[in-house]
Amino acid sequence: MDLLRERIISEGRIIGTDILKVDSFLNHQIDPAVMDEIGRSLSGAFSESGVTKVLTVESSGIAPALSVARFLGVPAVFARKTASRNLDSDTYVSGVHSYTKGVDYVIRVSKRYLQADDVVLLIDDFLAKGCALRGLIDIVAQSGAKIAGAGIVIEKGFQEGGALIRGMGIRVHSLAIIKEMSEKENRISFKDENDTKG
Amino acid sequence: MDLLRERIISEGRIIGTDILKVDSFLNHQIDPAVMDEIGRSLSGAFSESGVTKVLTVESSGIAPALSVARFLGVPAVFARKTASRNLDSDTYVSGVHSYTKGVDYVIRVSKRYLQADDVVLLIDDFLAKGCALRGLIDIVAQSGAKIAGAGIVIEKGFQEGGALIRGMGIRVHSLAIIKEMSEKENRISFKDENDTKG
Repeated sequence: MDLLRERIISEGRIIGTDILKVDSFLNHQIDPAVMDEIGRSLSGAFSESGVTKVLTVESSGIAPALSVARFLGVPAVFARKTASRNLDSDTYVSGVHSYTKGVDYVIRVSKRYLQADDVVLLIDDFLAKGCALRGLIDIVAQSGAKIAGAGIVIEKGFQEGGALIRGMGIRVHSLAIIKEMSEKENRISFKDENDTKG
Repeated sequence: MDLLRERIISEGRIIGTDILKVDSFLNHQIDPAVMDEIGRSLSGAFSESGVTKVLTVESSGIAPALSVARFLGVPAVFARKTASRNLDSDTYVSGVHSYTKGVDYVIRVSKRYLQADDVVLLIDDFLAKGCALRGLIDIVAQSGAKIAGAGIVIEKGFQEGGALIRGMGIRVHSLAIIKEMSEKENRISFKDENDTKG
């Protein structure tokens, strides 16, 4: 998706060797036009997959998941990271480690909203080490639903998550895969292919 | 908004005297069609207000904020509740108490995304005691921006938040205001007026 790559190049801020800040349009401030394009592209990639539900983790996944769900005409569900009086007690639960935030946390999805006959499209803003996605995959497995694949906005191709998830036989479609990036040279390069099966 | 009231009546689950679960379409599972209607209605109520930015708090506010921002053609910003390597260190900060989760937390917005010349529309899924909204109002005050008003999906009219925020001279437009609800009788009643100035 050219618009996304252009915005990454013009607005992305590289910190060290592994942090890419795209909070001007993706995960702090959100540009609805970019989000529409993300929804259109990712939904198109899975339009033949019989998706019945989009699943993500709060918070940064919610905007792209909603946008994809709009185009597919199916509900989006976001896994909760915190216990709340608003969440059912009868939930699927999985553990996730966040390298970005340096913490372990638990994600929960109410059993009401994920059933064995669902076909689930996983959506997230970033794929790096694959921890959040593995938590979601675990939750879908508990529900007995099928996984159509994972739609990712930005994949850090130099980290192991993409290979790990594809190695599980799950289709991963990433709109932009970063081959390498350098804070010192302020340079980002992308991989050309964006859709490989495990 | 009739669609919203219908969904609240048919799917809302009342717990005790103050908890209304609408997680089948609003804040755990999201129905994109309902969210489109929410965006259309709330953006329409503030279409003459010169809004340059929509502001909410993660996580449940993100979906309605994005939907409103799409219709207004302006960016949405969501305040972060947790520190992250992805968030700038130069932020506006405010404290919020959550009665739903029984915790105090800090919300942060990067100074990059809120400026003195912005006109800000605050969006949230619920207005109860008004704590989250007061945190956002504090953050906008720090930035020097103007507040166009607050667009709320569901206001608990039997709690003090609405009167408190309107009493600050801030316009509050709520799509559904609950007058009272009863778990025992499984009954919800709504107020008719949904837009009063302080």
